[in-house]
Amino acid sequence: MLKLIGLGLSLEFTTLRSIAELVNCDEVVIDSYTSAWFPSLDIVVQALKAMGKSVRIAKREDLEGTATKYLIDMAKSKDVCVAVPGDPMIATTHAALVVDAIKQGVEVVVVPSMSVINAIYGISCLQSYRIGKIATVVRPKNGIVYEYPLHVIRYNRERDLHTPLLLEIDLEKGYFMTPREALEILLDIQHHLKLDVLSEDDKIVIIKAFGSRTSTIVYTSIKEVLDGIAELEERTVYTIIVPARRLHPIEEECLQNIGKIVYRYSHIDIDLIKLLNILSKSANR
Amino acid sequence: MLKLIGLGLSLEFTTLRSIAELVNCDEVVIDSYTSAWFPSLDIVVQALKAMGKSVRIAKREDLEGTATKYLIDMAKSKDVCVAVPGDPMIATTHAALVVDAIKQGVEVVVVPSMSVINAIYGISCLQSYRIGKIATVVRPKNGIVYEYPLHVIRYNRERDLHTPLLLEIDLEKGYFMTPREALEILLDIQHHLKLDVLSEDDKIVIIKAFGSRTSTIVYTSIKEVLDGIAELEERTVYTIIVPARRLHPIEEECLQNIGKIVYRYSHIDIDLIKLLNILSKSANR
Repeated sequence: MLKLIGLGLSLEFTTLRSIAELVNCDEVVIDSYTSAWFPSLDIVVQALKAMGKSVRIAKREDLEGTATKYLIDMAKSKDVCVAVPGDPMIATTHAALVVDAIKQGVEVVVVPSMSVINAIYGISCLQSYRIGKIATVVRPKNGIVYEYPLHVIRYNRERDLHTPLLLEIDLEKGYFMTPREALEILLDIQHHLKLDVLSEDDKIVIIKAFGSRTSTIVYTSIKEVLDGIAELEERTVYTIIVPARRLHPIEEECLQNIGKIVYRYSHIDIDLIKLLNILSKSANR
Repeated sequence: MLKLIGLGLSLEFTTLRSIAELVNCDEVVIDSYTSAWFPSLDIVVQALKAMGKSVRIAKREDLEGTATKYLIDMAKSKDVCVAVPGDPMIATTHAALVVDAIKQGVEVVVVPSMSVINAIYGISCLQSYRIGKIATVVRPKNGIVYEYPLHVIRYNRERDLHTPLLLEIDLEKGYFMTPREALEILLDIQHHLKLDVLSEDDKIVIIKAFGSRTSTIVYTSIKEVLDGIAELEERTVYTIIVPARRLHPIEEECLQNIGKIVYRYSHIDIDLIKLLNILSKSANR
């Protein structure tokens, strides 16, 4: 059996189902490259090792292309689990792994979890019916500029929809795009295309490292971000939401107060080994 | 302090953070009317009562309009928690409560969780970048037919996007719209408007009661649903996703196999009281 288990955004945003599935694995492979996870995947590794599980941290090349053959073969005789920060099926590479395994007759179990996309709906003050297509802002590569996110914002704004923007991360190289970098890229594209989609006075929502100890949500103007806001310069995961030009009164009031809503939580000292043991005794497939 | 705590889609999809927050409440009010929750909210009530907490199940009139004054006043001197199936901020009524509380100087903590919207991204085989605006299908009321969802599907399909459709539920009256009813409503609207958005041969994704013991995901034609599929006639929560006409090859392959991906899980016997106690000892604000 092959299980893809979402770990949510952080240890404390992991579900009971995901924890219960983790203890029923013969081999655990932890995807360390598609999403960030707080405080650190080492906690999961240590807890599973303490229970006598075989566990290893995988890099991109371990979970893509021909490397998946090894995993799928192993899943024919053992319960192999791929634990994924966030939601396992958001990344196309995992969906492809699932399809390959099924084609080879392996039973596949998928356990969804909260991802950054979920957080956009839950913590941005914006109404779910007005959230449009998502885009990712990436750095120009080999001279190629990805203009697509600006077109998505334009398209959504023309239809009075909000645009969630994921910012490029490269966990293997330790790169996290900051909101300032993302806005500079978008404004460069706009300048180059002679469009008028974003103005420096536009206010945007920025979600920083949700689920971590330094998590924060800010509602501020593009200009202020470009001028530099210290807490938004830290290299970590960010999501920007560019709201529609017209806000619903409750969206507006909520956004005006978003800095006062507490989304950064008190410390809980989670004994993962104890939890794994409790849920292990009560789970059986 | 006022805390809005998401309970996710079911007991097993509750996060450690939500459980840890629940034990630190003086008064718990459980919203029983915005979303379904599996197996039953009584489990939460019983566990919290066993810990000596004051807890009650709230109806719509207890959490809207003037009734919120009572909650906000109480939150000035105590830790009052509103526990909400799914994600607390998806419902506009909860966002309004948060804003009112903040305006009165009450500290507000919000704990997001998975909602049905999150599940659309995680378990539909469809790529997150291609998911368009969401709509809800409701029954005609007082002779008024809500044509809006058909326009949203048309709009999304013209732009090659998938359309998630939430189906009307009325938990207080025990009403859950079935996929067949929803499609009949949409086809009636289409007929009336002389549009050509949906054809009976179109294949759609139906998510049934995710998180429950009878959960299932089906990829089938509109015609087959209209003809009657027994497991989709049960009165419970459904989500339909109308895919774009053109699918990405991995979406297509994943959908062809979606019936083989296991999203209905083995039983885990969760001792909520024990979990509450463990997380209670380790949490402090």
